[in-house]
Amino acid sequence: MKLQNTAKLIEQELKTVLSEDILQGEIVRPDHLMQAMRHGSLNGGKRLRPFLVLETAKSFNGSSVAALKVATALECIHCYSLVHDDLPAMDDDALRRGQPTVHIAFDEATAILAGDGLLTYAFDVLSADTTPLSAEKKIKLISSLTRASGLGGMVGGQALDLAAEKTAPDEAGILTLQQMKTGALIRYACEAGAKIGDADNFEHETMSNFGRIIGQAFQLADDLLDVTSDAKTMGKNTGKDADRGKATLVALHGADWARAKLVELAEEAKTLLHGMNRDTKILEETANFVIFRDR
Amino acid sequence: MKLQNTAKLIEQELKTVLSEDILQGEIVRPDHLMQAMRHGSLNGGKRLRPFLVLETAKSFNGSSVAALKVATALECIHCYSLVHDDLPAMDDDALRRGQPTVHIAFDEATAILAGDGLLTYAFDVLSADTTPLSAEKKIKLISSLTRASGLGGMVGGQALDLAAEKTAPDEAGILTLQQMKTGALIRYACEAGAKIGDADNFEHETMSNFGRIIGQAFQLADDLLDVTSDAKTMGKNTGKDADRGKATLVALHGADWARAKLVELAEEAKTLLHGMNRDTKILEETANFVIFRDR
Repeated sequence: MKLQNTAKLIEQELKTVLSEDILQGEIVRPDHLMQAMRHGSLNGGKRLRPFLVLETAKSFNGSSVAALKVATALECIHCYSLVHDDLPAMDDDALRRGQPTVHIAFDEATAILAGDGLLTYAFDVLSADTTPLSAEKKIKLISSLTRASGLGGMVGGQALDLAAEKTAPDEAGILTLQQMKTGALIRYACEAGAKIGDADNFEHETMSNFGRIIGQAFQLADDLLDVTSDAKTMGKNTGKDADRGKATLVALHGADWARAKLVELAEEAKTLLHGMNRDTKILEETANFVIFRDR
Repeated sequence: MKLQNTAKLIEQELKTVLSEDILQGEIVRPDHLMQAMRHGSLNGGKRLRPFLVLETAKSFNGSSVAALKVATALECIHCYSLVHDDLPAMDDDALRRGQPTVHIAFDEATAILAGDGLLTYAFDVLSADTTPLSAEKKIKLISSLTRASGLGGMVGGQALDLAAEKTAPDEAGILTLQQMKTGALIRYACEAGAKIGDADNFEHETMSNFGRIIGQAFQLADDLLDVTSDAKTMGKNTGKDADRGKATLVALHGADWARAKLVELAEEAKTLLHGMNRDTKILEETANFVIFRDR
């Protein structure tokens, strides 16, 4: 499956769940808020995390319906974090993918609530009867998602990132921050795919390590592109990190070091995949795409 | 058990889970953010929702350890909603229970993240191995909590409440808004207690109706006190609703109507409880406390 196909599938699933007719709520779904949740999630993202869930689940013979539900829940978490990160009190961004951010298109209060709604909705999807997994598997997926996205994961990473603008962390600090802020959800995607399928303990551990490496490489590639690419190619402003005086590994060690490190991470990822007796061709291609992308 | 005892139990449980030594996270728990989450949750609240979970579970022979965990998760949801509601873009409150609100004591970005962290943490607690319930019960409790607190529940109710400052809803609109904004979590507390225990379908339905009535009465009593009490007794400013031109049933029908309606709701609640062959003495007292409280 291609990344673009996953993106379409996920957009379709999000549209379905965030529609008046289908979304199950106790009483009423305020239309204005639901539109804001749609605006914050149906924005043409790359859907890399969902793709990793779907492809990993496939490698381990997991149900594709279940994988699509888990992928949608994970994307809700990713999207809510973008809606909240864009707020004036946080990164104060008015545009995302060329569209006004939620607090610009609606208002700040609605953006806060839309983020809260998407976050809550992720756990709705994971616990829903329509997600075809055993209660035991659902609980494991929910528990690990809370760990990946909460105080000890993404939310904590965002707090460290905001603090980093003042404190200038060292290399270990940068790695921790990035592992939490962006790495944790990417790693979760790979672990979740293994959990949905029939991965044994060794394979689950392998996919967890694969996810950690992909997460690290994703961020390093991002930081490198911020230095070496231009706004036209990227579809967003570049050089932002340097302008904000943001500490990145590229700022610390330079672009050549980063390129060499990416080659190293790609090798590590490949070796991990080859250590399992599974069809992981697409995961290998994905690793290369994440690591050597040009935008 | 007295309400004050529950408050102590819940504070203790929240302190334990929100402490560096015990909280389990993947990597690091940023101290600043954790302090903000503690500030937003360890604030001496009445803990009415947890009390309802504990007492309902007791009436249905549910595990008190499980009930305490579920009560803590529910209180995390309630507390996150207060942290976000207090934000400048929402109700813009600088004080809560005589203490600076989270965005005043810390900053706005930290308050947004602390709310996100508490929300996420609720589902962490519900899915944790240390919560002694079957995976099936946990999934039911998680699913119904997402419905009570998301777009079709509390978050949607807050969106309707913000809109109501401009649109002046009619009686049905006010009832819907209040059922979603405050009623849904109170109702959840009563349903959750029944789920933790051994309630049959009729009893579960009864507790759901009891919770709906208590939720409605809680809000009506609140609106009445806002008109009839004074700041000293309430520990917060009164007359706020009228100042904001907020539509309430008390504003529509007057204080005498509200007092009569509260007596009626107390009778309904009592009748429901008496329709079950369970020891519901404390739940009956609680209903009376909620309905006839003076602050």
